[in-house]
Amino acid sequence: MRVIGVDPGTAITGWGIIESSGNELKMVAVGTIITAAGTPLSKRLQIIYEELTKIIEQWQPSAAAIEELFFSKNAKTALAVGHGRGVAMLALANADLPITEYKPLEVKQAITGHGGADKKQMQQMVKLLLSLDDIPRPDDAADALAIAICHLHSARLRLLE
Amino acid sequence: MRVIGVDPGTAITGWGIIESSGNELKMVAVGTIITAAGTPLSKRLQIIYEELTKIIEQWQPSAAAIEELFFSKNAKTALAVGHGRGVAMLALANADLPITEYKPLEVKQAITGHGGADKKQMQQMVKLLLSLDDIPRPDDAADALAIAICHLHSARLRLLE
Repeated sequence: MRVIGVDPGTAITGWGIIESSGNELKMVAVGTIITAAGTPLSKRLQIIYEELTKIIEQWQPSAAAIEELFFSKNAKTALAVGHGRGVAMLALANADLPITEYKPLEVKQAITGHGGADKKQMQQMVKLLLSLDDIPRPDDAADALAIAICHLHSARLRLLE
Repeated sequence: MRVIGVDPGTAITGWGIIESSGNELKMVAVGTIITAAGTPLSKRLQIIYEELTKIIEQWQPSAAAIEELFFSKNAKTALAVGHGRGVAMLALANADLPITEYKPLEVKQAITGHGGADKKQMQQMVKLLLSLDDIPRPDDAADALAIAICHLHSARLRLLE
């Protein structure tokens, strides 16, 4: 099973593709889609949509996972992330991938076993679980891998039920 | 000059197409894209993108106008509107339409001549300016027409400069 995890944004969209074979998790590819600050919003959204569509075509995941976001305070940030997340979800849906959304707490629990983990602990666990030499950079790439791992864990738990 | 105005959302996206010939403004078409509340978000975004793309193909506007949004309080609403607005902008950009964003205050001033107009006054002016028998319903459709009118007014002012 090959999964794409996406950490959406307007400036940086993190993505990571992992697969499971038996008990092992393997990172297939990871990266970020970066759009320059001066670019018109509509152009940035086109870039996110096109790049993500190309990544899906290249790596052929069979499922997608994305973080369910909650903003309690910064409405401006929420609006900006909403734009990027909307077109990212559209790219995944137009590629006929089933999309599962996970709450940040679910991702933390799936990766570290508890909901109180900090960013650094999360990234260490992503490195460990995928047997990587280093923590993937930037944070958005590591976060995307964490979401993909969360989905594979959850899929495995569903099989055991 | 034929313009599409879009009032984006996730549940309801208002759209209106108007054109100017000489000093007259004419409404060409107006409507809403409504997505049902129980539908998964990714499916709702697909519907908005596909319907808007079809509307553009059918009515062939040469420019697009959309409201620039500011949220000071409700981050949850901002995130939801951001998703819908993102895919709406993508549909407009992928149809090669130049997109202009207008602040709510600019739309009010273009329609009523002052920034303090309320919703009812705005809708009355939209009806008057387009020589309609009734105020277009729902509000999202009337708002979309207002944004399109704002763009034609601004384009005319730019010609006079």
